[in-house]
Amino acid sequence: MDGAVEPSKSALKKAEKQAKLAAEKAAKAAKKTARPVVGGKKADDIIGITVSKAENFPAWYQEVVLKSDMVEYYQEISGFFVLRPLAMHVWSEIRKWFSGHIEEMGVDEVSFPLFLSAKSLEKEKDHVEGFAPELAWVTKAGDKDLEVPVAIRPTSEAVMYPYYSKWIRSHRDLPLRLNQWNSVVRWEAKQTTPFLRTREFLWQEGHTAHLTEELAGKEVLEILELYAGVYEQLLALPVVRGTKTENEKFAGGYYTTTVEGYVPANGRGIQGATSHCLGQNFSKMFDITVEDPQNKGQHVHVWQNSWGLSTRVIGVMVMVHGDDKGLVLPPRVAKIQTILIPVGINKSTTPEDRKKHEEQVDSIRKTLRKAGVRADSDWREGYTPAWKFNDWELKGVPLRIEFGPKDAAKEVVSWARRDTGEKGVFPIAEVGTKVPELLETIQKDMYNKAEASFREHRLKITKWEDVLPALDDKNVVLIPFCLDGKCEDRIKELTTRVDEHPDLPDNQKLPSMGMKSLCIPFDQPTGDELVPGETACLNPECKGKAQKWVMFGRSY
Amino acid sequence: MDGAVEPSKSALKKAEKQAKLAAEKAAKAAKKTARPVVGGKKADDIIGITVSKAENFPAWYQEVVLKSDMVEYYQEISGFFVLRPLAMHVWSEIRKWFSGHIEEMGVDEVSFPLFLSAKSLEKEKDHVEGFAPELAWVTKAGDKDLEVPVAIRPTSEAVMYPYYSKWIRSHRDLPLRLNQWNSVVRWEAKQTTPFLRTREFLWQEGHTAHLTEELAGKEVLEILELYAGVYEQLLALPVVRGTKTENEKFAGGYYTTTVEGYVPANGRGIQGATSHCLGQNFSKMFDITVEDPQNKGQHVHVWQNSWGLSTRVIGVMVMVHGDDKGLVLPPRVAKIQTILIPVGINKSTTPEDRKKHEEQVDSIRKTLRKAGVRADSDWREGYTPAWKFNDWELKGVPLRIEFGPKDAAKEVVSWARRDTGEKGVFPIAEVGTKVPELLETIQKDMYNKAEASFREHRLKITKWEDVLPALDDKNVVLIPFCLDGKCEDRIKELTTRVDEHPDLPDNQKLPSMGMKSLCIPFDQPTGDELVPGETACLNPECKGKAQKWVMFGRSY
Repeated sequence: MDGAVEPSKSALKKAEKQAKLAAEKAAKAAKKTARPVVGGKKADDIIGITVSKAENFPAWYQEVVLKSDMVEYYQEISGFFVLRPLAMHVWSEIRKWFSGHIEEMGVDEVSFPLFLSAKSLEKEKDHVEGFAPELAWVTKAGDKDLEVPVAIRPTSEAVMYPYYSKWIRSHRDLPLRLNQWNSVVRWEAKQTTPFLRTREFLWQEGHTAHLTEELAGKEVLEILELYAGVYEQLLALPVVRGTKTENEKFAGGYYTTTVEGYVPANGRGIQGATSHCLGQNFSKMFDITVEDPQNKGQHVHVWQNSWGLSTRVIGVMVMVHGDDKGLVLPPRVAKIQTILIPVGINKSTTPEDRKKHEEQVDSIRKTLRKAGVRADSDWREGYTPAWKFNDWELKGVPLRIEFGPKDAAKEVVSWARRDTGEKGVFPIAEVGTKVPELLETIQKDMYNKAEASFREHRLKITKWEDVLPALDDKNVVLIPFCLDGKCEDRIKELTTRVDEHPDLPDNQKLPSMGMKSLCIPFDQPTGDELVPGETACLNPECKGKAQKWVMFGRSY
Repeated sequence: MDGAVEPSKSALKKAEKQAKLAAEKAAKAAKKTARPVVGGKKADDIIGITVSKAENFPAWYQEVVLKSDMVEYYQEISGFFVLRPLAMHVWSEIRKWFSGHIEEMGVDEVSFPLFLSAKSLEKEKDHVEGFAPELAWVTKAGDKDLEVPVAIRPTSEAVMYPYYSKWIRSHRDLPLRLNQWNSVVRWEAKQTTPFLRTREFLWQEGHTAHLTEELAGKEVLEILELYAGVYEQLLALPVVRGTKTENEKFAGGYYTTTVEGYVPANGRGIQGATSHCLGQNFSKMFDITVEDPQNKGQHVHVWQNSWGLSTRVIGVMVMVHGDDKGLVLPPRVAKIQTILIPVGINKSTTPEDRKKHEEQVDSIRKTLRKAGVRADSDWREGYTPAWKFNDWELKGVPLRIEFGPKDAAKEVVSWARRDTGEKGVFPIAEVGTKVPELLETIQKDMYNKAEASFREHRLKITKWEDVLPALDDKNVVLIPFCLDGKCEDRIKELTTRVDEHPDLPDNQKLPSMGMKSLCIPFDQPTGDELVPGETACLNPECKGKAQKWVMFGRSY
C-alpha cells in the first residue's frame, strides 16, 4: 500500500526545520513558566501559541501539536513521535467507527507478523522498489547475527499474500477480506513532521481478494466512501473523491482511488486516504488462483484490493481547524467535548458555599455524562479561570461551560464555543438537551466552514497563464488534462518557480513548489469548456487532447 | 514488564517439536482432502483432530490451533505466527471489555514508538539484563548502516519513562495512567508455541505513576481484579490471585501480583497475567519526582506500576476447554456464537421448498441477531450436514442449530451444545429468548467445570513425600513455605526427576519437570497446619520456618 505519509518538498525543508526548533524552544519556555500562579496573577499569554497561523504556518503547526499535548518528539531517535491521549482519542474514535462499518461488510480482523523475509520481498520487485530505501533491517538478536536479516513491514502485501495463496483454494473461499490495525515503519530520509511524515505511523491496512474485477471494484468504492466518511462525518473535513493518475497511483497496482483534502492556510492539497484495486498483478506474483466456477478446469487469478488510512488524518484535522489560540477539535472526536469551569470562587468564598458550588458543578457534569456528552470539570487549584480558559482553548475542547454563583442564582450556565468564540447561556434544566444539540451544531458549522473554503479555492482554469496566480492565491485548480504521465511531469516543472533571486529574504519569496496532480475527480465539472478528445490539454507545450478535468495543486 | 510468554522446559522440547511436525503434517493432509464432497460422500473423519488430548497433549494443541483456523505458522521466519479472525475476535472482545474498564478508572490511551535507543537501555540495567539476549536490533535502514543501532521494544519501560520524568512536574500531574495496545518482540531462542511463547505477541501494557505507595498498591489490585475478570467472565477460566515470590517477581520491580491458571490435561500451572508495583526503583533511575505536597521544598520519587495481559490468554483458553473434536469457545468471546445449519434439503427438494426453507432459516438468523446473538448460517454447497457439523465443532462454535423441513413442520429448531454435546429443541417462536439464555448457561457451565477441576487439583500438602505423587496425579500443590529464594531453587531441584533410565520409551517415563512457585495466594487456606514462624518449611532440607501457604506446580 502506498505512502499515506508523503514526502514534503525540499523547498520547505529549511523553513520547517527552523519552525521545529522555534516550536520546541517555545514549548520549553512555556513548560517552565506554565506552573500554577497562586494568588491570581495572570499567566494567560505564556501558555498560548506564540506564532501566527497566517504568518508562519509550519511553525504554528509544530507549536499547536506540541503545546496541546497531542504529540511529543521522541528525543531518543529522530523521526519518531509519541502520540498522547488527545491524539489517540481521535484515532480510537476513527477506529471504532471504521471497524463497525467494515465488520458489517464482512471484513475480518487479523494480525500478521511485524517482519518480512528478504525472500518474500523478492517476489514483487515493482512494488518493493519504492519501499527498499526506507526498509529497517533487523540483523541481530541479542548478541548474535541473524542468519538472514529480516525487514520491518513498510506495508504488508509481501507478508500476507503468500497466505492468501494458501488459504484461497476454491471460489467458495472468496471474497477473502482481512484488515489489520498496526504500525508500519518507513525510515524516511527527509525531514519528518508529526502525523504527516513520520518513520513509524499507525494505520489500518485492508487486503481483500475477489473473484471478478467488478466485485473488487465495488468494494474499492465502498471503502473510499468510508474514508470520505471519516473525514466528513468525524473530522468535519471536506474531501474530493477521485482516481489517481497513472503517475500517482500505487506502485504495482491496477488503479488507485483517493480522497483529497485541502489546507486553506497554504492552499496545498493533501492526500487523505487511498483505496487501491491491485487487479491481478499481485495474484500473479503470489500465485493466488481458483478454479473458474464458469469454466470447470480453468484457473483464474483472483482480483485484489488494498486500502489504508493512517494517523495522517489527525494532522490534516489540526491544520484545517486550528487557529491562533491552538487546537480546535470537532466534537465527535474530542476526548473532552465539554469542559466545566467553576468561576467566581475566591478566597472570600465560605467553605459551605464552595461545597455547594462543587455539588452543583458535579450535578451538571453528571447530567451531561448521562446525555452521552464526554464532559469533565476543571477543579485544579492555583490557576485562574482565565488561565484555564486559555488552557482548554489550546487543547481544542469544543465547548466551555462557565458556572459561578451568579449563574447559579439565575439558574443558568454560561457557554463559549471554541470554533467561533460565540457565547450564550442555557437554563440549567436544559443542559442535557441543549449541550448535545450545540455540539452537533459546532460539528456541522466546522464542516460547512471548511467545505466552503475548499469549494471557493477549487478553481476551474482554462487558460495556462491563470495557473500560477491561482496557486499563489492558495487555490487548487481543475484543468483540462490529457492524462499523459510525461505531460504531468512537465506541468510540474513548468509550475516550479526558479526565477527568484536566491538571496531574497524568505518573506519576499513566493512559494516555489510546482503543482502535481491530486486526482481525477469522480464529480467532473459540467459545461462545454472540455470536450473529451477535442479540447486541448491545458499544458501549452502539450499536443494532446484533454480527456478529463484533473485536480492539480501544490501538495503535501 | 516481565514475560507474559514464559520459557517452557527443555525436557518437553523434543516432544513438542515432534508434536509440531506431526500436527503440521496432519493439517497438510487435512487441507488436501477437506475439499467439498459433492454427492454426499462422507468426509467427516478427515477434517477432525487426529490426536487425542489425553494421549499427546502438545500435538493435540498444535493441531487444534491450526485446524480450527486460529493461527497459521509464519513459514518465512520461525517463531512468528499469524493470528487469524477466530483468534483476533477473542482478543478484540477482551480489548473492548478491558478498555472500557480502565477508561472508567481514568487510564488514557497512548502510543509510544516501537524502538528504544541503546542509551535508554543503559539507564535501567537490572531490568534490561533479562531482556538483553532477546532484543532484536535494527542496524540498517535501506542500504545504509544506522549511526546507532536501535532495539525493538521487548516492553516499554525504557521507552516511556523518560517522558514520565518530563511530563510529571507537580503532584497535580498525578496519577499519570497510560496504557497502550501493541506488539512486542522477544527473540526467544527456545522452541516457540502458538500463543504461549512467540517471538512477537500482542498485549496491552499499562504504566502508571502515583504519589504514594498506598495509591499505587490500590491500583495494582484493581487491575489484577480486571485480569481475573478477563479469565473468569470472558474466557470461563478460573484463576488464583496472589503475589509472586521474590524469585519469580518482575526484574527491577517492588512486588508482582498475578492470576494463575491451571491446565487439567497435564496438571501444569500457567501464569495468567501480572500486575506489578515497581515501587520507586524506576522513578529513581529515570528521575521522576514531584514536590511533596506535605513537605514543601522536599522532592519525592513517584510510585509506579506496570501491568500487562497478552494473547497468551487465548492459548490457555484453548488448552483448558478444547476436546478431541477441536476448539470449544466460551460464548462471550466466540466470533460466531450460534451456527444455523439447514438439514433435510436434498436433490429431491423442489426449488420452491428450498426457497421457503432458506427464508425460514434467514428469519431465524435475523431474530437471533436482533437478540444480540452473533449468528450465522452455513449455506455452503457440496458439503453434507454431517461434514458441516464437524467443521463447526472443530472451530468451537458454542451452539449449533439444525433446521429441516421436519423441524419446520413442528415449528421447532433442534440444537446441540458444543461443550457437552447435549441436544434439544426450542419452539421457533422462542429462539430470541431461549438461545441467549442457553449461551449464558454454556458460559457458566464451562466456567464451573473448569473451576471444579482446578479446585480438585489444588492440593494442600503437609508431607514432603506426598509432593511428587500429587504432581504426577496432575495436581498443583499448596505447601507451607519459608519464602526463601534459595530454598525455592532447591525445591525445584528436589522435584526434578533424574532417576529414570534415559533409554526408557517416552510413554513409560514420568514427567521430569521440577516444580516452581506459582504464587502466594491472597486467599490462604485456613486450619492449624501452618502457624507462621513456627511450622517448618515443607522442604525437608530447609531449616527455615514456613511463612505462608505457597502454590507450587509444574508450570509453563
